[in-house]
Amino acid sequence: MDTSSFAAGAAYMRGRYVPIAEASIPVTDWGFTRSDAVYDVVHVFRDGFFRLDDHLDRFLQSMQARRLKPAEDRAAIEAVLHRCVALSGLSDAYVAMVALRGRPRIAGSRRPQDCDNHLIAYALPWIDVIPKDVQERGAHLWIASTPRVPDASVDPTVKNYQWSDLTSGLFEAHDHGYDTAILCDAQGFVTEGPGFNVFLVRDGQVLTPDRGSLHGITRKSVLELCAAMGIEARVAAIPRALLEEADEVFAATTAGGVMPVSRIGARMLGNDRPGPVSLALKQAYWQRHEEGWHRTPVRKIDALAAE
Amino acid sequence: MDTSSFAAGAAYMRGRYVPIAEASIPVTDWGFTRSDAVYDVVHVFRDGFFRLDDHLDRFLQSMQARRLKPAEDRAAIEAVLHRCVALSGLSDAYVAMVALRGRPRIAGSRRPQDCDNHLIAYALPWIDVIPKDVQERGAHLWIASTPRVPDASVDPTVKNYQWSDLTSGLFEAHDHGYDTAILCDAQGFVTEGPGFNVFLVRDGQVLTPDRGSLHGITRKSVLELCAAMGIEARVAAIPRALLEEADEVFAATTAGGVMPVSRIGARMLGNDRPGPVSLALKQAYWQRHEEGWHRTPVRKIDALAAE
Repeated sequence: MDTSSFAAGAAYMRGRYVPIAEASIPVTDWGFTRSDAVYDVVHVFRDGFFRLDDHLDRFLQSMQARRLKPAEDRAAIEAVLHRCVALSGLSDAYVAMVALRGRPRIAGSRRPQDCDNHLIAYALPWIDVIPKDVQERGAHLWIASTPRVPDASVDPTVKNYQWSDLTSGLFEAHDHGYDTAILCDAQGFVTEGPGFNVFLVRDGQVLTPDRGSLHGITRKSVLELCAAMGIEARVAAIPRALLEEADEVFAATTAGGVMPVSRIGARMLGNDRPGPVSLALKQAYWQRHEEGWHRTPVRKIDALAAE
Repeated sequence: MDTSSFAAGAAYMRGRYVPIAEASIPVTDWGFTRSDAVYDVVHVFRDGFFRLDDHLDRFLQSMQARRLKPAEDRAAIEAVLHRCVALSGLSDAYVAMVALRGRPRIAGSRRPQDCDNHLIAYALPWIDVIPKDVQERGAHLWIASTPRVPDASVDPTVKNYQWSDLTSGLFEAHDHGYDTAILCDAQGFVTEGPGFNVFLVRDGQVLTPDRGSLHGITRKSVLELCAAMGIEARVAAIPRALLEEADEVFAATTAGGVMPVSRIGARMLGNDRPGPVSLALKQAYWQRHEEGWHRTPVRKIDALAAE
């Protein structure tokens, strides 16, 4: 099979595989016009998915929460993800799966249950949510004034594209010369940033927010690494002041892994450099990847063709 | 020009006019993956736009609020809307304009300011947000338990696609056998429903919420009609109990106009029928349309070709 047209990325939509440049959705799809969609992103490191089952578990939970039922079941979705990566020929990839509401079968209907839901998936070259050079010096994190949307209005554990509050936070961060932002909720508790969970280290203890944020798979990995490394870690309510007074701060996301922060608002952390606990966790995170932790090898095209 | 392929709807994107079935956006456009887009919808009644300038004013304000700058200026956008309608051949139409963040010019950038923003517009056959037969008997409105996203997190006066809380309200409404939903904020004040503003009538006075809702153009029309008809009207904080105890309730939206409500939660209003003030305003709204109120005739194809 000639896969050269897929080198920039391979996508699946409505039962077909297409180069990423051809993957599009109708402007009238409710996945767009009502942001009525859920998604997930798993990464591929050296020809192996990382924690694929965890991502599929979460994706299925997100779909169920929003009553989205595309034609493909879990096994079919998993096969689609393998094939997108295999077609792309990428060894390191960012792999997205999206369930969209679609459009009504009945013309003029405004009822979600009248829509044909559908699945889109695609593999793209790996992207870091925070550029590598920024990770080296430690990211500069702005504490945004825009409050995070409350969990009761939009459940942040259902991975969604409704980023307006996070984007407002990004505008604030960039206006002030910072790399990215972290949002607090209206009660002043720390939540998450655009595309990442946040952790802080205080007196040797690692803390991450219990609210307003995705239950990230990298977050889960960090908590497991802490347990394995004998570092005390807790999921807790984190007032803004605790973040500002932290010894260390780091971000965690599929698109980047563990990413140290060296400035939080106006404050420099640890002599304006990534801190030791953050660096140890970052090192362990990638070391474990090399050791095959939670790894699912990407099936090759030939193997897939024979299915 | 052969416009038959545009009969189901005509769209404009990236400088070209295409049949609506061909109008799509890349799955990687941030207008989709971050719901980073604003939009507006104007309607065409018997070959004339209704309050086109008001819609363009609001669309430009929404773009400015989200720092979206497509290549087309106001005059160009207006010309695009005229041409979409003319190409579709529709006398009564629903006409959407959307500004999207687009994708980064710099590969891998996560900064909104690195994206090429773009405009999409399209004309579709008229759709009522509440079906005509439901409007006749009066809509049944469910008061949702899902709280509306707070104004401080996502400004509801900037018309956006982030409908998750509204969709949750719709799920609740349909689960209980109701037509559609109205949401209150976390403090218990009435806001808006999926795609419409709400009004109530109490002791002859018309009230509509001062928070949590779009500054609808139909809402504005209703307030103007009230003034012209000698009906006292106010924009005010409306506790949920006031809505439940109303004499009449009606919805207002571009895709339907003034739409009476006959049930609010478990309560029947006015003998389970549309109320007299609601019906008088609905009648006046369409009567004014026939008289050419705020009307901008749609430019014909020939006139446009000669521009």
